[in-house]
Parts: sequence; C-alpha cells; structure tokens
Amino acid sequence: MAMPIITLTTDFGTRDPWVGIMKGVMLGVCPEARLVDLTHDIAPQDVLEAAMALESAMRFFPEGTVHLAVVDPGVGGSRHPIAARAGGHLFVGPDNGLFTFALERAGPDRVVVRLEAPQYRLTPLSRTFHGRDLFAPAAAHLAAGLALERLGPRLADPVLLPLPRARRDGNMVVGEVLVADRFGNLVTSVTDKDIQILGGPTAIEVGSRNLGRLRESYVDGTTAEPAAIIGSAGRLEIFVRDGSAAAVLGASRGTAVRVRRV
Amino acid sequence: MAMPIITLTTDFGTRDPWVGIMKGVMLGVCPEARLVDLTHDIAPQDVLEAAMALESAMRFFPEGTVHLAVVDPGVGGSRHPIAARAGGHLFVGPDNGLFTFALERAGPDRVVVRLEAPQYRLTPLSRTFHGRDLFAPAAAHLAAGLALERLGPRLADPVLLPLPRARRDGNMVVGEVLVADRFGNLVTSVTDKDIQILGGPTAIEVGSRNLGRLRESYVDGTTAEPAAIIGSAGRLEIFVRDGSAAAVLGASRGTAVRVRRV
Amino acid sequence: MAMPIITLTTDFGTRDPWVGIMKGVMLGVCPEARLVDLTHDIAPQDVLEAAMALESAMRFFPEGTVHLAVVDPGVGGSRHPIAARAGGHLFVGPDNGLFTFALERAGPDRVVVRLEAPQYRLTPLSRTFHGRDLFAPAAAHLAAGLALERLGPRLADPVLLPLPRARRDGNMVVGEVLVADRFGNLVTSVTDKDIQILGGPTAIEVGSRNLGRLRESYVDGTTAEPAAIIGSAGRLEIFVRDGSAAAVLGASRGTAVRVRRV
Repeated sequence: MAMPIITLTTDFGTRDPWVGIMKGVMLGVCPEARLVDLTHDIAPQDVLEAAMALESAMRFFPEGTVHLAVVDPGVGGSRHPIAARAGGHLFVGPDNGLFTFALERAGPDRVVVRLEAPQYRLTPLSRTFHGRDLFAPAAAHLAAGLALERLGPRLADPVLLPLPRARRDGNMVVGEVLVADRFGNLVTSVTDKDIQILGGPTAIEVGSRNLGRLRESYVDGTTAEPAAIIGSAGRLEIFVRDGSAAAVLGASRGTAVRVRRV
Repeated sequence: MAMPIITLTTDFGTRDPWVGIMKGVMLGVCPEARLVDLTHDIAPQDVLEAAMALESAMRFFPEGTVHLAVVDPGVGGSRHPIAARAGGHLFVGPDNGLFTFALERAGPDRVVVRLEAPQYRLTPLSRTFHGRDLFAPAAAHLAAGLALERLGPRLADPVLLPLPRARRDGNMVVGEVLVADRFGNLVTSVTDKDIQILGGPTAIEVGSRNLGRLRESYVDGTTAEPAAIIGSAGRLEIFVRDGSAAAVLGASRGTAVRVRRV
Repeated sequence: MAMPIITLTTDFGTRDPWVGIMKGVMLGVCPEARLVDLTHDIAPQDVLEAAMALESAMRFFPEGTVHLAVVDPGVGGSRHPIAARAGGHLFVGPDNGLFTFALERAGPDRVVVRLEAPQYRLTPLSRTFHGRDLFAPAAAHLAAGLALERLGPRLADPVLLPLPRARRDGNMVVGEVLVADRFGNLVTSVTDKDIQILGGPTAIEVGSRNLGRLRESYVDGTTAEPAAIIGSAGRLEIFVRDGSAAAVLGASRGTAVRVRRV
C-alpha cells in the first residue's frame, strides 16, 4: 500500500482541535497515510446520520480504504470498540451501528474484531476520548498494513441499526424522510429500486402534499414548488429549486413519503 | 509532476460528505495528488463570490496547479462542463463564469475544452452531482498528467461574468462593495491601481459616510470608526478594528464606494 | 525528514480562502509537507483560546512537527513575527503569547528568533496578511529543513500569557472556567494534578452549584444534572450528558470553580 487512505467521520465539529489531534496520532503511526475528512458535523450522537454519510461515500473510495468513524454516545461505557473488514474496505469505531450498511451487505464475508490488543492504543487510555486513544491508532496501524485480526478477538454479532426501509403497499411504496442536507433537500428511505418495482409512472406525496411526477434534474423543478428526484446516492430526494424543501414542507426525519403508481 | 496540487472551491458546505466523496474519486484516479480546500462555504450558487475566491488564491499556488470549482446552479441543464488552461494553471468546473478572472487575463493564450470524452467520467453520469461524476475525475486526470485536449473539443467562447469594475469620474473613482468576509470586512471593486491613477491623497466614502484617508494597516484604525485600507488581494477594503464594517455600515454587495482626490 | 508535518491554528474561519492561500504558499516552498488543520475557528483574536488548542494538541504530534499559528490582533503593528524551538517541536507565528505553554515548559532550552531574513518571506510584504507573507513561508522553510537560526536574530524575552492557574486555598482548589467546547463542556484551569494534591475524595462546585463527586466518564452523568470529570487533556471539565453545561449553568470564561476535599 503506497499511499493508504483513511477517511474520518465524526460529530466533533471543527471548532476544537480534536480532529487534528486524531490526525497527529495517525501520522505518528503511519506517516504516509492520506487523511480525508468526510464530515465532522454529524448532529451530536446521531449514529444513523453518520452511517448514511459513510454509506453514500465509501463506494467512491478505492478498495483498502480505512474508514474511521467516531460518533460515540457510549464512550467510556460498555460498548465495544471495533474494527471490521467488509466489501474490501476497513472500518474502525465504536460498536453501535455506524457500519451497518457495509456489514449487512457483506453478510457472512464480514470480519469484525474487538480492539483489545494493548500495543495498538495510547496509554493511559482515557475514558473520554477513544477517538484519540483507541480508534485513531487502530486505523493508522491498519493503514500501515497490520492484519485486522491482530487488533483483537472476533466479535460475532456487531450492533446493526434497524434501518428504516420503504415498504410496498399495493400500488404504492411507503417510506420516510431520513435526513435533510445543507440545502434543505430531504433524503428518504425510498430507493430507485423501490420505485422501479412499481413498473410505471408514479406520483410522489410528502405528508399530505402531492409533488407530481419524478423529475430528471434540479433544473426541472421550480423555485416555488417542492419536487422529487432520484438523488446522487440512488435515493428519492425532495427538493425546492434554489430553496429549502425542509423549510417549505416543514418536514424532518420520520415524515411519511409515498410513491404511488399512476 | 511529483506531487500535483488540486484546489477545491464549492458551495457544498462541509456538513454533508460531498466534498469527501469528490476527494475519494480523485485519489482513486491520482493517488499522489495534494488536495487543498480553498472554501466550501461559498454562498449557495454565488458564482461571483467563488470567482473572487479563486482570483485571490490562485497566484499563491505553483504553476501547474489544478483548480476544481463547483458552484453550479445549472447542473443537469444545458451549461457545458469545461476544463481550461490559462496563465500556467488548470481549471475544471461548469462553464458559468467561475474562471472569468484567469480566462480574461490570459486572453487568446487560454485554451478551453468541453468535458465530453466518456473515458474520463464516472458512469452512469448522474444529473445531480457532476462534481463527483464529471469534474473530480477530469481534475484528477489532469493532475495525473493527461493533456487538456484529451478531455474534449475546444470551446471558443466560454461564459465570462460581467465583472463589476470601478470607474473614473473626474477627481473620483467610483466602485461598489463586492463581498463581506468573515470579519465583516467589505471587499470592493476598487483596486490599488484605480487609486494610484488619482495621483495624490484621497478620502474614502461608503454610501454617505466619509471614512477619511487610506490607512496603512488594521492597527491604524479605531474600534469605533470604519476605515479603509488596501487589503491583501490588492483591493480597497473597509474595516472596523476588532469589529464588523458590514454591520456598522449596514453595507453589502452593491453599496457604493467612492475614492475622492483631496 | 521524509514527510514533515505542519499544523495550522488560526481565527480565519473557513469561509474565505485565506487558509487555502497559506497552504498554497507552503506547498510551493515544501511540496512534501503534510498540512493538518487544528482549528480555524478560534474566536476572533482570542490568543488564550488558540494557546490552549495548541497545548492540548501538540503532544500528539511527532517530534519535529512545525506548528503555525496565526491569531494576530497586532498584525501590521510593532509586535514581532517569531519562530521558536521548544520541546522538540517548532513554532511560527506572532509574538503575542500563542506558544506560552510550550515556551514556559521548555524554559532555558527554548530558542526564539525574530523573522527578519528577507529571503524567507514573500515580497512585497503586506501589512494585513502576515500569515501568507511571513508565517507560511517561514513554517514551510523549517519543514523543508532550514535551521531555525537562519530565519533571524534571537529574541530573548518572548511574550508569555499570564496563564490562569488554579490555587490551593486550605482544603480547596480554586480555579475558573477557561473555554467552552462545541458540546458546551466547560474546560477549567484546574488540572488533575491540582486535585491529586488534595489527597482524597472531593466535591466540585461551579459558581454556587454543587456538582458532587468527580465522575469517571460521560456515561456516569445524567441528562439533567451537570457533573465534573477529568477531560482528555488532563483538566477538570464540567459536562451535562447529551446537553450543554455552558447553557445549563450560564457559565463562561472566568466563572469560579472550586474543588473541595470532603
């Protein structure tokens, strides 16, 4: 591995030097690692949001990339620190569902270990900043070529989030809003595959509002009316051209979304 | 090119993983590229603000640097995706005026091409995220040494923004506020050259307020009164020491600025 | 030095391209430098906050790391631009106390020089952006292996901040809140060593509120009540589980904190 890549996903924000500190630890272990921030502005302790960010990003990174994620409401408690290999990528973080998408997709091919080997952590191990003391060193050692299995014993049953999935209901697919992005676009649990199954033209509803047919691109929408599109991650998204669908619709996580065959 | 540099300028923000995704795509194509964020907090779809950020930054990068900019209100519409070479630097983004400063300065020496070669993009090409599917791969291939002309056919007449320029009016130069920076400093369309032409001492006015003579540095101002200075990018700037000139003056883009020979 | 590291700490924010410009200058001088952002969101001109960020971060970077810090209310005035070597690390920035922690700890082993050698700066030198014109080039030349002493003459008495320190008062240690972090956790001037000196169980008070005993980790707190912990940087911190201690307590820099032997 000439220039291994480590991505970082946290809810640490960028105002305090915590992310920089983790990078210092990692460059001390693996000086040639390429460090790529995915985001540090996950809503505090929102594990699902972080899991979705990783899911949308990971397939655009080369095989062998190490994904370090620290959204960790249970730090210092009983949750396990883990590392995993799934789908050709490596993952390091708390065992709380952050890697659900990749682990589910890999199924029995996944390998998950608990970070217990004392030589791959900082000492003394704090009880408040495992990102620095446990996860950053483990990620950097993996990037430097350490075998996953050296980090600790196998964990058979990692925590997996109960992912909100759209369901078929007659001539409809019923789902919900998962997150709003920076522009107020609403990303939903309905995928392009869910819609293809309906086998023909559809109309989209958010709450009680009818948004009409699916659009091909943002410029097909208007600046007044919310509209629906298949977004860049393959999910149904609701947008308002040059505006915020979240604000216009008063919608947030859990708002119902229906796609109806017409 | 041992360690080619790619700068990134977008209005994507840093809350969502879009910038990280583009970096993943680029490192997959050109693993040795150095990726430098200029800013991802351009006001949404503010092409002029992005053009000015690039203008102030590009001359501090080495020759051969690739500048990737994605502020793209027309994504999925009919605007062309382009790459360009001008003044020893390379540029990749939508054809909407983002590179106006460099393209104007280079004049006939500039080369602009449309990104049409299918082998230098991701497939399927989405209609919502050309930053990921079109611009990031093109920028990375250029960083890896691909000849610009391989990306597609020449574009003779790229879009250029009508740049707000100060004008001479008798013993005055008349311009306007272009942007406010994070500290509330107001950057204007009046350049140091515009002022030199007046050939002697001057007084500065913003709206109806007289700011007196030009200062030499921020510490020459007071914490109560707005004052004017030639900023680090060679433009007249209005500041309040330890405060916000934008707030104190209630000024924003388009507010008139006059420099009068006294 | 195969891949030298330069950290960056500023109050520039990330909305404007200033940080990117400094990186362009540095990569022009030292193309192989690894650039790590500590934070660019120091409160404008808050030298103490920047000094504390550096203090908590620097020991997690390898020896030889160059720390560039630009929080510089006196830019263009009479304060000296400096570079320093202390504790195996290098520092570049204005002489206003940013490096107090490292310089005090190193004592007579520290070396501080004024940045006066004209060949290691950009010309013309602006009076408004020394980060770009003076500090970035100096940091990059140090990263590239230049001897510190080549940058300019020795400075015997660099500015040191009067650091707020906790004091012993009978069976108590009395300190104060220094900063609030992104989660509203309050970092104080009381260190773990200050508390160990009390030699037994303690109770913590913030203002007039009793927080009870010291906790072992965040999960030992409740979502309703503020509690105290030794944070990851070895300082007493006040937190509210899943909440903001700063908001709940109405506390900020200077609020009194007492640790009482019980």
